[in-house]
Amino acid sequence: MQKESCDILVIGAGPAGGVCASIAKISNPDKKIVVLREHEQQLVPCSIPYVFGNTLGTVENGLAPCGLPANMDIDSKVATVSDIDIKNKVAYYNDSEISFDKLVFATGSIPFVHESLQHSLDLEGVFTIAKNVELIKKLKDYSNEKQNIIVVGSGFIGIEIAMEFAGVGKNVTVVGGSEFILNRAFDSDIAQEAQKIVTDAGVKYIGSDRVVEIVDKNGDNIVNGVKLKSGRVVDADVVILATGYKPNTQLADKVGISLGHYGGIWVDDYMRTENLDIFAVGDCTARRGFISKAPSKVMLASTSAAEARVAGSSIYGIKYLKGMSGTISIFSTKIGDTVFASAGVTADKAEVKTNTTMIIGSFKGINRHPAKMPGTREQYVKLIVSRYSGQVLGGQVIGGDEVGEIINLIGHIIESGKSVYSVMSMQVATQPMLTGAPTNYPLIMAAIMAIKEMES
Amino acid sequence: MQKESCDILVIGAGPAGGVCASIAKISNPDKKIVVLREHEQQLVPCSIPYVFGNTLGTVENGLAPCGLPANMDIDSKVATVSDIDIKNKVAYYNDSEISFDKLVFATGSIPFVHESLQHSLDLEGVFTIAKNVELIKKLKDYSNEKQNIIVVGSGFIGIEIAMEFAGVGKNVTVVGGSEFILNRAFDSDIAQEAQKIVTDAGVKYIGSDRVVEIVDKNGDNIVNGVKLKSGRVVDADVVILATGYKPNTQLADKVGISLGHYGGIWVDDYMRTENLDIFAVGDCTARRGFISKAPSKVMLASTSAAEARVAGSSIYGIKYLKGMSGTISIFSTKIGDTVFASAGVTADKAEVKTNTTMIIGSFKGINRHPAKMPGTREQYVKLIVSRYSGQVLGGQVIGGDEVGEIINLIGHIIESGKSVYSVMSMQVATQPMLTGAPTNYPLIMAAIMAIKEMES
Repeated sequence: MQKESCDILVIGAGPAGGVCASIAKISNPDKKIVVLREHEQQLVPCSIPYVFGNTLGTVENGLAPCGLPANMDIDSKVATVSDIDIKNKVAYYNDSEISFDKLVFATGSIPFVHESLQHSLDLEGVFTIAKNVELIKKLKDYSNEKQNIIVVGSGFIGIEIAMEFAGVGKNVTVVGGSEFILNRAFDSDIAQEAQKIVTDAGVKYIGSDRVVEIVDKNGDNIVNGVKLKSGRVVDADVVILATGYKPNTQLADKVGISLGHYGGIWVDDYMRTENLDIFAVGDCTARRGFISKAPSKVMLASTSAAEARVAGSSIYGIKYLKGMSGTISIFSTKIGDTVFASAGVTADKAEVKTNTTMIIGSFKGINRHPAKMPGTREQYVKLIVSRYSGQVLGGQVIGGDEVGEIINLIGHIIESGKSVYSVMSMQVATQPMLTGAPTNYPLIMAAIMAIKEMES
Repeated sequence: MQKESCDILVIGAGPAGGVCASIAKISNPDKKIVVLREHEQQLVPCSIPYVFGNTLGTVENGLAPCGLPANMDIDSKVATVSDIDIKNKVAYYNDSEISFDKLVFATGSIPFVHESLQHSLDLEGVFTIAKNVELIKKLKDYSNEKQNIIVVGSGFIGIEIAMEFAGVGKNVTVVGGSEFILNRAFDSDIAQEAQKIVTDAGVKYIGSDRVVEIVDKNGDNIVNGVKLKSGRVVDADVVILATGYKPNTQLADKVGISLGHYGGIWVDDYMRTENLDIFAVGDCTARRGFISKAPSKVMLASTSAAEARVAGSSIYGIKYLKGMSGTISIFSTKIGDTVFASAGVTADKAEVKTNTTMIIGSFKGINRHPAKMPGTREQYVKLIVSRYSGQVLGGQVIGGDEVGEIINLIGHIIESGKSVYSVMSMQVATQPMLTGAPTNYPLIMAAIMAIKEMES
């Protein structure tokens, strides 16, 4: 058995593991860092939907380095850890062992499939969206020769995949389980607009029903479709289960690391487990929301990267009192030519989930000025605001590509605890070819509408 | 003489006056508000460059309503105020008088022309960029039939106009007075990239020389070109003086309102003059920078709109302790297909102007992910950071259209006094078709580079 030692051992090299190792190295240039990754090749997770259609075209185009700049002097090995001796700080993989001073779990997530459907996973033509090059290639090759595709799940992965398949002429049906698509990220008024683009693109949406069975009517182990709760049967050659992910914490649990809610590894605001030498970052952690710190199921690579930066820079001591004070669920996607983005809480859920009274300020403006500028289109901003403190708790935006960064401005306003009065008087750059008008910048106008509501 | 009365009288209906009136009305729905504007029609100020080329094509396409939504119950009249009795709160215009409770100066700015060139302003073919529909139409009509154009001034108005004229086949020379264009907003490394696009588009740039005389060699009152300090003469049919603006404060000065530096009306952080019933907003005010509150010559419609919101909401009492705590000079423009944006201080000037020791963190990444995504291009972020507190003092960005909103995120970071540690751990939405990768989001990476520098 080969023996090795390092200062910081990171298990997993997705966005969380890669970023954590890089930041740890920048903060601690003299420390020896080893990253163990499961696969030689890996995909940029959020690019997976785009390999199925024309956007990326091939699985190869979605490949990523493991997030580690080549010249950073971080050791990266393909290895599956089988066991860890927490007390003696040794990890075992393949035929080797490695001792460490600090350990980081970045083991990610694996597809979640409802118990009642798990026995159908081995039917030919049934797939999950695992973050695994071979499985994604298999789905792409298989679907190339098929025409009828069912996507189960109407979250952003499901919708992005459905749109890509529709774009190459497939007959796509999404079975959602909620009246409107994307219902975790958006209020129904916004989700309806997204849904219209999806159905106009030829994707069928079944919202108020749900899959109870995956059908193999000939008993030949080849899928034929799905059966819904209503009794309706929808035929298909390919069934893709995009029904979310769950933390991959089997190893952590086995070696005695405490888990939190939803099976994630319990961590404090600096991503430390109960053992202060052991960290966990990314989808394998038990996440909390930013308002009441209630458990959150949000899984986003950008959240993982933020956690990884906190952990990587705090690994030999906390440097800055902020940490990861809960996920703000910040998210964007492009459906057809329209961008939809969301941060913080939604209005449909704010009151129920957090018991915070809130009001809404919204404004429909344009993304260029004056309206005759080429490329001008509508931009709609909706803010969810704490009725009494005026703090911005959430925002949703519809518009052109610029919305991808406007949501990050809204995210920063939320993370900073700023109020609508602060937004009202904020200074923004406005330019005819790039933004709305200084007089009618939609985000600021939405804040003003919220102020009007608060003061009335 | 007609007599009238109102609660709030606003003189001027540009971005500052229009926004101030709107916000005052929203905050005080029962107050009678009157806005006096000088012209029946007005242009969106920052759209003026685009009427000369193909972007907007006509002056009519640059016209704007005066910033007042039609149904807001605000009275708007075309009127030039001749005098104000401050003590008795009465303003005189045309053949009328109007009494007021609160008064807002929003009289804007007028072109600044160096004393030595003023006598040439009445030559045929010499123009300034006044915010006046008739004058802009005159310049457009006149230049339609001419080929050789000199733009004096290499600020953003000058460069945007030069690029528009070059785009319709004119022979354009910019005389800048500084080695690189846009030298107030950008460090020389960034300005050089902008300059390359401008000169590649066929615009000639004369940087290290300056205009000392406007030439009328035939003595027929028609311009022939300019003479430079070096003795060189450049021929031209049209000379456009884009050499900045100065506060339009003749009326305020005449009626005894105190002025501050650079001829602007002195105001406090809530845009109140020394007389607390009298406010001033926009380009007619004496602006301050955000670090040491040193005098600032920045004139931007977006700054004016922010001031107007502070004034409009504070007109019957301060509602929120923030006010206008100095301009952050936040600005963006598109040159060719590339967007350049800046906020806060530049590195070339930070140390000199504010005596703050600072460091730089920069990162060159991409604006999509992975790199195979259609539309992927470089995105470069440079942050100017206080060496000891880590606060972000300035940022400059080069990239695609998304930069128009990224700079607003940087502006909010600066206005909020956040440090690079805060930026490092901020949560951003990342999406393959819209933004850089979660692992390499350029703004966050630039903050990390600054941290590396601070800690080394």
